[in-house]
Amino acid sequence: MSAYHPLTLEEATQIAREIPDLFHEQADLSAHEIGDGNLNLVFHISDAASNKSIILKQALPYAKVVGESWPLTLDRARIESEALLLEHQLCPDLVPTVYRYDAELAMTIMEDLSDHTIMRKGLIEGNRYPLFAGHIAEFLARTLFFTSDLGKNQQAKKEAVKQFINPELCKITEDLIFADPYFDSETNNFNPAIRDAVEALWADQPLKLEVAQLREKFLTSAQALLHGDLHTGSIFITEQSTKVIDPEFAYYGPMGFDIAAILSNLAMNYIGQAYWSKTSEARESYRDYLTETLREIWSAFDTNFRALWNEHTVDPLANTPGYQDLYMQRLLQDAIGFAGCKMIRRTIGLAHVADIDTITDTAVKERAERLALAIGRTFIMEHRQAKTFDTFIDTLEQAIEGVHAS
Amino acid sequence: MSAYHPLTLEEATQIAREIPDLFHEQADLSAHEIGDGNLNLVFHISDAASNKSIILKQALPYAKVVGESWPLTLDRARIESEALLLEHQLCPDLVPTVYRYDAELAMTIMEDLSDHTIMRKGLIEGNRYPLFAGHIAEFLARTLFFTSDLGKNQQAKKEAVKQFINPELCKITEDLIFADPYFDSETNNFNPAIRDAVEALWADQPLKLEVAQLREKFLTSAQALLHGDLHTGSIFITEQSTKVIDPEFAYYGPMGFDIAAILSNLAMNYIGQAYWSKTSEARESYRDYLTETLREIWSAFDTNFRALWNEHTVDPLANTPGYQDLYMQRLLQDAIGFAGCKMIRRTIGLAHVADIDTITDTAVKERAERLALAIGRTFIMEHRQAKTFDTFIDTLEQAIEGVHAS
Repeated sequence: MSAYHPLTLEEATQIAREIPDLFHEQADLSAHEIGDGNLNLVFHISDAASNKSIILKQALPYAKVVGESWPLTLDRARIESEALLLEHQLCPDLVPTVYRYDAELAMTIMEDLSDHTIMRKGLIEGNRYPLFAGHIAEFLARTLFFTSDLGKNQQAKKEAVKQFINPELCKITEDLIFADPYFDSETNNFNPAIRDAVEALWADQPLKLEVAQLREKFLTSAQALLHGDLHTGSIFITEQSTKVIDPEFAYYGPMGFDIAAILSNLAMNYIGQAYWSKTSEARESYRDYLTETLREIWSAFDTNFRALWNEHTVDPLANTPGYQDLYMQRLLQDAIGFAGCKMIRRTIGLAHVADIDTITDTAVKERAERLALAIGRTFIMEHRQAKTFDTFIDTLEQAIEGVHAS
Repeated sequence: MSAYHPLTLEEATQIAREIPDLFHEQADLSAHEIGDGNLNLVFHISDAASNKSIILKQALPYAKVVGESWPLTLDRARIESEALLLEHQLCPDLVPTVYRYDAELAMTIMEDLSDHTIMRKGLIEGNRYPLFAGHIAEFLARTLFFTSDLGKNQQAKKEAVKQFINPELCKITEDLIFADPYFDSETNNFNPAIRDAVEALWADQPLKLEVAQLREKFLTSAQALLHGDLHTGSIFITEQSTKVIDPEFAYYGPMGFDIAAILSNLAMNYIGQAYWSKTSEARESYRDYLTETLREIWSAFDTNFRALWNEHTVDPLANTPGYQDLYMQRLLQDAIGFAGCKMIRRTIGLAHVADIDTITDTAVKERAERLALAIGRTFIMEHRQAKTFDTFIDTLEQAIEGVHAS
């Protein structure tokens, strides 16, 4: 196979057939392209006889988001594949196995996870995943700790920073999360019914001052290798299993940004579930499940990260009394601040979340969007004062109670 | 010329002769090796007839410091040369011209500055450089601003981060400034007479907690391209001219670290001048010259940097009201904190400064060393509360007055 071109079904099938020790030579492979065509081709290739299957993912040289299209580097396939390999090494049960990566074709062949559901869809349907909090806390703690100066030789870490320099995909985040929502930018995309709240936000200088500092942290803080896009659409899940996929935004950034992605997407689902009536026990119970999950995520992350630190740190000053507590508090504060940025961008920026966008009652949807903006703003304004994770839960719960009381 | 080998005088002369448009073909070149042989060969090659001369600097594959020798990457010659070119572009009058760089030979040919003096030597001799504060403030402001996310396209900046990944030379700083002085490490090197103060420092947990955070900043904050070793031995100077040389430690780090190098080395000279008698007007006047210079450096840096920001920033959120003030205050605080680390390491770490080491009166030398430790500690402990540059000057002056009063 020569230089880059988008693969046909036949080519993809042939490549899959050549993976050593997977399919029988004569296997009757069936293949489907199952991607949405916006960023990648995704081929599902399976052999009914042996019940074996794989996913072949090929990057396209452009991105399409909400109708817009722009050229996008194929190097993201390398970054994705190398990040998957590294994450799989650190968390073998929580990341799909990579069978093969081809740089020229910008193609990765990996474990098929068709028996899993995209977590965002599962949450919207009201499903519960009792092991998720523990799983994602372990993923966060291990990938962030062991790629940082705390857990990785500090010279090897610098080579890793170089390996994961990712300007084009970082630019998407910088623009769509840390700039466009705060101006009357063409990329913005919001419900006309909340224009008053959006215009208030554009004029909100104290908010922008905090966002400028969080943006600076995203631009300059090379703390650990981030997944970079760790929302509930990048997680495949079942009741027993959690698999983190799609790390094409991976780069060395502030740890809190990955933690924030998880927290803010659960918070958006929580707000999306706001079209319960006050008396609906099922809704209330699901909200409790979500806040319980949020609490468990932070607390298990905190426990895991500290345990790794106590056992494995390679930094000569890391065990200075008080440093670990300070560090964890800063992670918490960063996570809350970044979570606020993510909630605002998911409400008025280019890309929304289905958890809120699929609400059919327009009044309820508007209320949810206003809530997301208000909670996001509180997170951003108060993150530097946060001492415990209660700040996060209290802000969420008080905002919802405020709606019910009004 | 083939693969790497240390050049002979004859080879160096031949290479110099081949620089286009510099020497006459038949010029009678005279050549001397003038380096100290610890890190580099340095050839001075001149033509008496035309009065033209150059410096040819070749990296050696090892470093020798205070008798120790360890292998050291030749890639530092590339980093030095590329940093010189970039700095020269930003500050043509303040950085020597590079005529040629050869990667294979790890060799840079540059402007000869033999008519300049090493600034450390000049200060020890009590000379004054009235233009220095303005020059170095301009160098700092322009190199730091235009390589940061404030003044450089943020995607191009990421490529520059990659270009200047510098693990081996950063490790020297990480060990010798941000680790070894805080433990009973073999690399330490201090006057036995101050062992009590050094042992108190090793047991000083609040100090170590601050140092751990400054170390973390050095490791993770990719704010701007630093010179990385900007002490008064890396500056060639006359009354009219200032030239910054030797950026082999260049990497993307926290801006305050470069500012601190200048401030702390002037402060060490100030302390080294402590063997004045209280009544010596000359000494007092020189101290006033140094504090005046220090004040001017910060104030001119602050003015220059803000002016560049106001005119040239490329960051969409940089002009949010209040952000610039916050940013400058953080730079000041970082600079004071890092200055403290540098003063401590120059007193008890591997490499000292001649400003203090050449004091011949042992009692005065001991007093100066104790002063450097005490002032360094105060800088580190109080840097996060600093609001104006007065904090720096006041700490210096009060410490000296304390000695005189006692």
